[in-house]
Amino acid sequence: MLTKVNLADKFSLFTEHFSPKIAGALNGQEVKLVKFQGEFVWHHHDAEDELFLIVRGSMTMQLRDGDIELNPGEFLIVPHGVEHCPKAQQEVEILLFEPADTRNTGNLENALTATSVAI
Amino acid sequence: MLTKVNLADKFSLFTEHFSPKIAGALNGQEVKLVKFQGEFVWHHHDAEDELFLIVRGSMTMQLRDGDIELNPGEFLIVPHGVEHCPKAQQEVEILLFEPADTRNTGNLENALTATSVAI
Repeated sequence: MLTKVNLADKFSLFTEHFSPKIAGALNGQEVKLVKFQGEFVWHHHDAEDELFLIVRGSMTMQLRDGDIELNPGEFLIVPHGVEHCPKAQQEVEILLFEPADTRNTGNLENALTATSVAI
Repeated sequence: MLTKVNLADKFSLFTEHFSPKIAGALNGQEVKLVKFQGEFVWHHHDAEDELFLIVRGSMTMQLRDGDIELNPGEFLIVPHGVEHCPKAQQEVEILLFEPADTRNTGNLENALTATSVAI
């Protein structure tokens, strides 16, 4: 039997920031849920395009050619190779859609690099 | 410059039922938006897994081993090969995530088969 995923229920299961959790997988891609507040780090992904769908709160996607404000019910696709740096003044809840095994810090490996686990 | 997508704005641009519109593309996959009311048709996809995220309204995913009720903020992944038939008593708005060129009627080609266009 298949099982549906309730986003609010899944988000209630964790509190960490900048550490995406895997909520689903299909076609070699993963649905990940992430919470964060503050500023991440400038990075890009060599091969992976990344979708950010805002579930709760608001965030700014900083891009080298300008900022994009994102509110609930809005999504942004950041193509591979495009440098970006998410930030949020208040905590946000984001649904990510990206290829399995995408590293959250992209081309960087540092203290913010997190291994995604299923939730 | 990248452009964000506001789901409500995009859904306001069309009224057809059972005819998914392409709202984004990444990694060989597409984000599609679809409205419908009533019952679709039993079908499966030979190779493509399909994600249904409910944006507005409620729907029932009929599966051969039982029904799953889906409400806003919930998603269901239907793996390839699994027969399914969506239905909704009132109009619903759904975000689909699936490989580019997925046919809405899967293994069937009939009057409900629709070509997805960008919106």
